Order: sequence, then C-alpha cells, then structure tokens
Amino acid sequence: MALKDTVSRAYSNWMAGSGPENDIVISSRIRVARNMSHFAFPHMLSLEKAEEVIHALTLALENKDLKFSSGHLEVSRMSELSPVERQILVEKHLISPDLLKGHEKKAIALRDDEVLSIMVNEEDHLRVQSLLPGLQLESAWDQVNRLDDELEKTLDYAFSERLGYLSACPTNVGTGLRASVMVHLPGLVHTDQIKGVLNTVSKIGLTVRGLYGEGTEAAGNLFQISNQVTLGHSENEIIQNIVSVTKQLQEREKTARKALYNERRSQLEDRIGRSYGILKYARILSTDEAMKRFSDLRLGIDLNIITDTKPELVTELMVLTRPAFLVSKAGSDMTVFERDVKRAELVRNKLKVK
Amino acid sequence: MALKDTVSRAYSNWMAGSGPENDIVISSRIRVARNMSHFAFPHMLSLEKAEEVIHALTLALENKDLKFSSGHLEVSRMSELSPVERQILVEKHLISPDLLKGHEKKAIALRDDEVLSIMVNEEDHLRVQSLLPGLQLESAWDQVNRLDDELEKTLDYAFSERLGYLSACPTNVGTGLRASVMVHLPGLVHTDQIKGVLNTVSKIGLTVRGLYGEGTEAAGNLFQISNQVTLGHSENEIIQNIVSVTKQLQEREKTARKALYNERRSQLEDRIGRSYGILKYARILSTDEAMKRFSDLRLGIDLNIITDTKPELVTELMVLTRPAFLVSKAGSDMTVFERDVKRAELVRNKLKVK
Repeated sequence: MALKDTVSRAYSNWMAGSGPENDIVISSRIRVARNMSHFAFPHMLSLEKAEEVIHALTLALENKDLKFSSGHLEVSRMSELSPVERQILVEKHLISPDLLKGHEKKAIALRDDEVLSIMVNEEDHLRVQSLLPGLQLESAWDQVNRLDDELEKTLDYAFSERLGYLSACPTNVGTGLRASVMVHLPGLVHTDQIKGVLNTVSKIGLTVRGLYGEGTEAAGNLFQISNQVTLGHSENEIIQNIVSVTKQLQEREKTARKALYNERRSQLEDRIGRSYGILKYARILSTDEAMKRFSDLRLGIDLNIITDTKPELVTELMVLTRPAFLVSKAGSDMTVFERDVKRAELVRNKLKVK
Repeated sequence: MALKDTVSRAYSNWMAGSGPENDIVISSRIRVARNMSHFAFPHMLSLEKAEEVIHALTLALENKDLKFSSGHLEVSRMSELSPVERQILVEKHLISPDLLKGHEKKAIALRDDEVLSIMVNEEDHLRVQSLLPGLQLESAWDQVNRLDDELEKTLDYAFSERLGYLSACPTNVGTGLRASVMVHLPGLVHTDQIKGVLNTVSKIGLTVRGLYGEGTEAAGNLFQISNQVTLGHSENEIIQNIVSVTKQLQEREKTARKALYNERRSQLEDRIGRSYGILKYARILSTDEAMKRFSDLRLGIDLNIITDTKPELVTELMVLTRPAFLVSKAGSDMTVFERDVKRAELVRNKLKVK
C-alpha cells in the first residue's frame, strides 16, 4: 500500500481496542535512535549525503532475512507528500513534528499495518519505531529489536564500546531507546490528584507530556510517559521501569475512578452523559472541546455507563478530528470555524444511532 | 374526574400543540373577576361566610342551562389537597399562587378538560378563567362569557352602573377582565432585542411577566403579556388590543428567528443541538437549566431543525419538570439535588429514541 493510502485512512493498528490494559493504557511505543558511521549527523548533512542515507536504508530493507522477520517497509520521501499529508502522519503518531522541518532531506519507511516505521534523517539518521495498542512495550521492543538486528547486518552503525550507540542528542546515547506509553487518566484529573502523581513520575527520571508531543498541553486527559535517559541502563531495565510505573499509575487511576463512581456517581454520569449528548448533537466543536468530550466518552465506555459505542471508535475519532485530517477530508483550505463545523459533522455521523 | 386526577396528570388541554400561531403563542387566557353583593371581599371574609360563597357557587353550577352551555365544573376545597397537590395546580396554571394562602377559605371549580375553571375566594369571590392553546383569546372569552352569563342568572354580582363590576383590587374594577397570552420569544432574546420590545409593550399599558406569575423571571424565554387596566374599555377592546400587540410581537419574533437562521445558522443549530443532546443524556438538571434547554428545543422544532420531537411534548415537559410535580411523582420529600436527578431522568425517558 502506498503512503498516500496511509494518509487518507484515519485508522491505525495502534488504535485497535484489543490491547491489554486498554481501559487506561491506549498505546505503547518503542523507538531506537541509530546513526551510520561515515555520515555527519542529519543537521550537518548535505542534501546529497542525506539522499545517500535514504538510499542505504532502502537497500538494507530489501534484505530477504529482514523481509522475512519484519515484513515489507516502503520508503517514501517527505517531499512526495503535501504539507497536509505530512501533518496527518504526525497526527497518526507515525512521525514527529521534527520530520516536517527541512523535509527535502527526510523520508519515512512504513509497514502496511503502521505498527513498524523508520523515520530517516530526523534528529538521527534512523529512528526505528513500533507502535501497538494497550500495554505491549515488550512486544513493541521485540519488533523493533528484530528489525534493528537485521538492519545492523548491512548498515554500519555508529557505535562506541564505551558509550553504546552514538546519537546527535546526548539523551539518546547508549541504548538509543525511548519507550513510552500513552495513558488516559481522567480519574486522576477529575479528583485533582494528577499534578501530584505526575510530579512523582518525573522525579524518578521519566518524562510526562501531552498527547501530541513535546510542549503540548495534555488534551483529553491523555498523557505520554517515557524514559528520559538511555545511557547506563539496559533496554530491559528501561522497559521494565516504564511498565512498572504504568502499572502503578493504572492502580491509582482505577482507585480514582472507583471513588468517582462510588462517591459522585450522579455528577460523573452527568458529565459523561452531557459530553456524549453534545458530541452527538453539536454543530460546532473545537479541537480542545472535542478532546475533552472524547475523554469523557471513553471513560463512560470503560465504566459501562455508555454501552452503545466502542472504545476504538473514540481513539479513531481523536485522530480523525485533528485539524490536518479534517482539512485533507475537505480537500481545501478551511478557516478554524469551518473546521469546527466539519469536526462536529464528522463526530455526529460517526456516533449516529444505528 | 376528581381533582386528584388533575393533580396526577401533567397534561392539560392548553398544552395541546394544535392552537393557532402555536409556534410563538403557547397559550391564551381570559379571566374575569366577580364578587357577590352582601358579602365582604375575601380578605375580610370569615371562615363561615367564605364557606357560604363556596356553597352559593356550587349551587349555581348545578343550574341545568349552565351545565348545557358550559359543562360540568366540579368544586374542590383547597383544604382537601396536600400542599404538593396545591402547588401542582399552580404549576399547571390552573390557580394563582395567591389561592394557596389561607387555603381553608378557598376552593376551585374545574371542568374535566381544565379549560374552564373558577377560583373561589382568591382576591375576589370568583375568578372565572379559560385557558386555551395558541392564540385563541376570542374563544377563551366566549367560554368565560357564557359561563359568567349563566352564573349571573343565579348569583347576585356586585355591580355599579357607573364603574361596572366591583372588585377588591382597583385594577380589576370595570370589566374585571384580564386577557393574557404566553409567548415564546427566543429569537428576540438571542438577538438582544427583547428588552426594547418589552419596554414598548409596557408603555402601551400592558404588563409583561415571566411564565410563573408576578415577580418571577422569564424562564425559558416565555413571557406573559396581559392588560393592566380593566376600567374604561370594553371587553372587546381589551382583547383586540392584546391580539394586535401579540401579532406584532409575533412578526418581530419571526423576523428575529429568520435573522438567526440566515446569519448565524451554525451557531443557532449548535445551541439547539447541544440543548437537545444535553436533555437526552444529562443526569442532573436544575429547573432553570431545563427551562432554558426546553426553549432551545422548542425553537429547534419550530424551525424544523429538530424533527423527531413534537412541540406538545416540550410544553408538557415544562410543566412535568416543575418542582412540585416531581415531588408528587416521587411520593416523598426530596432535596433540590434529588429533584434535579429525578428531573433529568424524567426528561431522558420522555425524549428517549423510539
């Protein structure tokens, strides 16, 4: 499937509701940063050399053993895509916003199911990523590790015996591994515990961000937890650390939801019901309001207060109603107001009584 | 049918959506104030004499000609009803809040369809009332006039050749007639024209009030327009004056609705949609919020934005969700919060997708 299909489809495999612990952990992501010897780091790379890096990866992906263990990843240059299509890849969490800057040097290799991907010439030459629904960091690591091992057979990675994998950014030196989970924590938000909890998380060396990467506010009560440092710990230690913190967060969140349900049930049901009613009938919906209502809806589904909508649909809506996706659907430039009207229309249609 | 049935039923004939000009004029009301000679006005009346007034009316209502022209009106003493039941009669607009004070002297005569009624020993000995859906002041007057004529045959009314019918309150001397319409003016409210319009109305000698009588705020964009003075004008002049003002209000309201529809359609549909969604899914609804949402819903129905709900249902819900009605349904005392939860439940059930 061509990348053009990927950007026209809102649904990614990581949105499937079938992942474990899916009521709280939306998705798990593993990525490793890799660089090739004999090439300058991307920010110092000429256009010609950047092209050589892309070419080297393309060749490496043709390896039969690699294809057997990891499947087919198709390489697309960022310059082949329109700005809106590139933005959609960001909204689908397949690439970082950084890959949009200086896009003529950059590329992405993507497997059909969108679980495995490689960003080329972002901050590092290669960033190999796996994205899975629910709490599946180990499986995600397995997939990335296998692909990485196969790539290493033909590519000459920049590696130091003392430091490990070298990277353009010091925080990526070592294993080059970043493990992250996206967690939905409405219970902790609505019981005003979130600040304390996230404070604790950041004190033990983990980073907390909103859904759409660095510097964005937590929209829809979704938080991304990831490791800060990749040096001095084995891949397993890093992953196990995140898994253990995630399980603790999950317990705290479950307790908070139980408290809301037992002590403020009417208020909880009221907020969830109102959000559901508004999503079903509103004609103007901003991104922020939509995310807030989606969070309520998702919580309502998890608590069996809303029984006629599936959780996967909510995750899909969260992506489908992002600005670039809406613009691409409409096929033309839109004002913010037109987008808000389009967003409401899309949500109404998706939630329509069957 | 006994009065006990009346207070257990939310629906009154005046709520039927079949009245003319029903998209803006909800109901029309005519009442005349009458007093009997040889009796002190009600506020000076002993318990014994008050009972005599009730008795005299009961006998008058037994008159065969009266029964033939006006039907059967059953007399019930206020003291037979519980405080909640009395409040329900107020919420159904069948009696005034004044009839609740010193209720041991007071009574109501009511026809089964609730169109014709007589309050006994309120401010005057008799207040004969007719309440019809839509703009039907002339029909309401016909009914009151016929009943009044029959009553006058057997009762000795206090009447002065110079002043007309005498009354305990100077503003009721003369014809003793009060004509009023309940109008729904969301268009004028949402285009910020209402204040100016109502100001003009009061300058030409008419009174404007909220839905639930004197001193209450206009809930749900419903306004009651009535004549202030009954002396010096014939019944016909009074009625024609209100009809003509109502028709002008109607034109202004229609223009305002058209402007909202043409110039701010998305915002209008959004507000209406949200209110509908909230009514369908909220779990806590205050009286004020409910009335506000009902007004939006009603407007949505009138403008064909909402097509799966009938206007009569909205009028019924407006009465059904009043505090006393809710208390009577639950059969026990309730806190405000419990009432708000019960109100939301009732509305959800009534608006449920068929």
